[in-house]
Amino acid sequence: MNRHDTAVHNGPPSSELSTELCAAITDIHRRGWCDGTGGNFSCVSRREPLQLLMAPSGVDKGKVKATDLITVDRQGAVLEGMGQASAETRLHLTIVETTGAGAVLHTHSQAATLLSRYAMVRGQHRQPTPAEEADQQRSGRYLTMQGLEMLKGLEGNNSHNQNIAIPVFDNDQDLDRLSERCRPHLQEAPYSLLISGHGLYAWGSDLKITRRHLEILEFLLEQHWRELLLQAATGVGGLS
Amino acid sequence: MNRHDTAVHNGPPSSELSTELCAAITDIHRRGWCDGTGGNFSCVSRREPLQLLMAPSGVDKGKVKATDLITVDRQGAVLEGMGQASAETRLHLTIVETTGAGAVLHTHSQAATLLSRYAMVRGQHRQPTPAEEADQQRSGRYLTMQGLEMLKGLEGNNSHNQNIAIPVFDNDQDLDRLSERCRPHLQEAPYSLLISGHGLYAWGSDLKITRRHLEILEFLLEQHWRELLLQAATGVGGLS
Amino acid sequence: MNRHDTAVHNGPPSSELSTELCAAITDIHRRGWCDGTGGNFSCVSRREPLQLLMAPSGVDKGKVKATDLITVDRQGAVLEGMGQASAETRLHLTIVETTGAGAVLHTHSQAATLLSRYAMVRGQHRQPTPAEEADQQRSGRYLTMQGLEMLKGLEGNNSHNQNIAIPVFDNDQDLDRLSERCRPHLQEAPYSLLISGHGLYAWGSDLKITRRHLEILEFLLEQHWRELLLQAATGVGGLS
Amino acid sequence: MNRHDTAVHNGPPSSELSTELCAAITDIHRRGWCDGTGGNFSCVSRREPLQLLMAPSGVDKGKVKATDLITVDRQGAVLEGMGQASAETRLHLTIVETTGAGAVLHTHSQAATLLSRYAMVRGQHRQPTPAEEADQQRSGRYLTMQGLEMLKGLEGNNSHNQNIAIPVFDNDQDLDRLSERCRPHLQEAPYSLLISGHGLYAWGSDLKITRRHLEILEFLLEQHWRELLLQAATGVGGLS
Repeated sequence: MNRHDTAVHNGPPSSELSTELCAAITDIHRRGWCDGTGGNFSCVSRREPLQLLMAPSGVDKGKVKATDLITVDRQGAVLEGMGQASAETRLHLTIVETTGAGAVLHTHSQAATLLSRYAMVRGQHRQPTPAEEADQQRSGRYLTMQGLEMLKGLEGNNSHNQNIAIPVFDNDQDLDRLSERCRPHLQEAPYSLLISGHGLYAWGSDLKITRRHLEILEFLLEQHWRELLLQAATGVGGLS
Repeated sequence: MNRHDTAVHNGPPSSELSTELCAAITDIHRRGWCDGTGGNFSCVSRREPLQLLMAPSGVDKGKVKATDLITVDRQGAVLEGMGQASAETRLHLTIVETTGAGAVLHTHSQAATLLSRYAMVRGQHRQPTPAEEADQQRSGRYLTMQGLEMLKGLEGNNSHNQNIAIPVFDNDQDLDRLSERCRPHLQEAPYSLLISGHGLYAWGSDLKITRRHLEILEFLLEQHWRELLLQAATGVGGLS
Repeated sequence: MNRHDTAVHNGPPSSELSTELCAAITDIHRRGWCDGTGGNFSCVSRREPLQLLMAPSGVDKGKVKATDLITVDRQGAVLEGMGQASAETRLHLTIVETTGAGAVLHTHSQAATLLSRYAMVRGQHRQPTPAEEADQQRSGRYLTMQGLEMLKGLEGNNSHNQNIAIPVFDNDQDLDRLSERCRPHLQEAPYSLLISGHGLYAWGSDLKITRRHLEILEFLLEQHWRELLLQAATGVGGLS
Repeated sequence: MNRHDTAVHNGPPSSELSTELCAAITDIHRRGWCDGTGGNFSCVSRREPLQLLMAPSGVDKGKVKATDLITVDRQGAVLEGMGQASAETRLHLTIVETTGAGAVLHTHSQAATLLSRYAMVRGQHRQPTPAEEADQQRSGRYLTMQGLEMLKGLEGNNSHNQNIAIPVFDNDQDLDRLSERCRPHLQEAPYSLLISGHGLYAWGSDLKITRRHLEILEFLLEQHWRELLLQAATGVGGLS
């Protein structure tokens, strides 16, 4: 897959970005992926020094306005805005620093929560790449998907025949520790990771592409859950 | 869990509370949790003497306006408004009196209705606490959930590793009797109880927090039902 | 159950009724119960001689305006309006004549379509009443439901312990023949019948009550389907 | 089934058609059938020489305005508009040329994606017609459905007893090759085909009828998936 490592960000100005981020959050809430004040959403508003525009912690995501957004620095300290930064800001920053992503959307959907736990128990291994093999020695868990046209919605994928392997990590309330466990896997991850019993992180080179990635990944997770039920119901072991 | 036992309520004034309650009801209806005039919704408008602001009985919850709301006293008699109080007002009052809650939201969702009956038959017991053990001698039924980040949305929970055990009660058209059966379980309940074949009651220290609790609990119930299907489909006995 | 046999109808005037019927159709379409121009919806605009206000045949139910509605007489001939009457008008008229109902809402939902076929194959019999026993000699098929609070939403039901047995009929493109097969079952039916592989007919004493009945019945059908899946998944034979 | 082979198209003028196509796309997006910029949608704006009005490639289908639409010629070259034509334009053109259709709506729904793969593995054969038998020698895969009233929503079907057999094709990133594989099956297909792991193509004599066909087909696919789960859960082999 293509990666986006440019240090300089030439995105829209901050007020436009605020409007765009609020529109994204409103749509994600409408879809039911961040109920109960769950989820968190950020985009890079400045690269040098790094600044993230994001939703504050603990607010109803269906009601976030542009003026509610906060700006945080590389250490997660709030530079602008009235709200508090979520503890999960640490993982947003680690993703942005490591992959050069321009936005991170973290959801608590039914399918992501469910399959993140299933992958823990079962492991859905294909033949791992060498890089993944090293990873597996540490965590051993991926959710793999293949053979689906929607995979082409992930930047750099140009065929339904390309597979993806989403790394799955144990949940941890210590976000520094969790972020460091995730870090070595981020470059190879398909713009996404799962936290067990918790949800999905999706990213991309800018907010628009990240929204597309999120829609694609949530579609694929919902599809995967339906496929597991259908396989069991019909005795067909693996849909081609 | 933290409990909210303060006798004095410092909430918004009554007209603001009416608007806020109507907005909550409209959203709950939109989600499909109170079809067919089902469900009931209240919040404390005064503590001493106790008064509840609530939706009247038997109305389409998608069409409730602030001027349709009624106020009832500690005995459930209507003080203000044109409508009638539901027989379930008794249970709302018992919850508010016993727990100090500032709001009670009672829904008829698919997942709550289904799992309330399942818990009756199967029992989903973990090792009970002493308080729960005493409860079990009376009712023997809990729906337990664990290992999910969304559990942190319940006030006082700060880790996905904390479990909850929602008590489940037989349905009863005699609401005085049902309320008295529920009463001894309310202090220990995770801001919620299930009535078998009927639905969910959720509460919290004020209306905003109760809306969050409700969204969290409905998410967890829907998740639990999908998990039971996936476990059966894949032969994985317990998702970690 | 109470029945509504009064020959005189004292409902709202015709223009108000048109607005009310359009609002009902719009809501039913939004819920996904009449896609692909499916379904049909009527209410009694006059009792003597009988006239029905209804949606015309073959139109997108998401776009019906008050001025699109038609009025038909007891023979199903169009008295007012530009559209054509559906062949199913015959069954609407039979229901209204036989039960004294003030409105009939006929939907093509996923759950109604699915369970109407399931009931054909399996039969979901409880101990039949004498009246039902006579019916069963002719058709032998009911979908029964019990133990659910939502059953109280059907006029005249005042406990979750009351059962209902919805009669299920083979589909037939000859609506005169189908209506005559349904007729002897209508008085005892719980304001509803199922046509196999086709959908649900719901009725009530006026349009508002019929909307409530429809929401209740669709809830119960969706619940029944989830219950069948959960029973099979967990090996619990009958939820209490 | 009736086919629509007239070479002359007497539809609405182009600006009206643009508005109508945008309304269709907005509705399809709202239903969740084209997330992540997936899907593609076209209608014939001119017959001689053939021109298609369509959504450009790679855009969020929830945000397409009439001015975003493009016009392409028989070779798929863009004649008007700023966007690019999708590679899938080739298949849209093949369908329109072969069947005389006035519109083609291509969706990426959960049910279409899932069942397209299931049909590949299992084959859902009924006794094939001679024409289908010849087809089967090439591809061997159909998804068949029968006994459902909603089948009447497909132009020319006038009974629930008529069956349909939707041909299913392997996905292929070479759209010329894929289109040629589909071409011999299009005349006999029930206004639709499935691409495995990819989605549904639906068509009809004009845009309005194609929207109806799409709603009908998506309903039938969702129904089929629920039916497969219910059959497995209850041990009832074939719903009648």
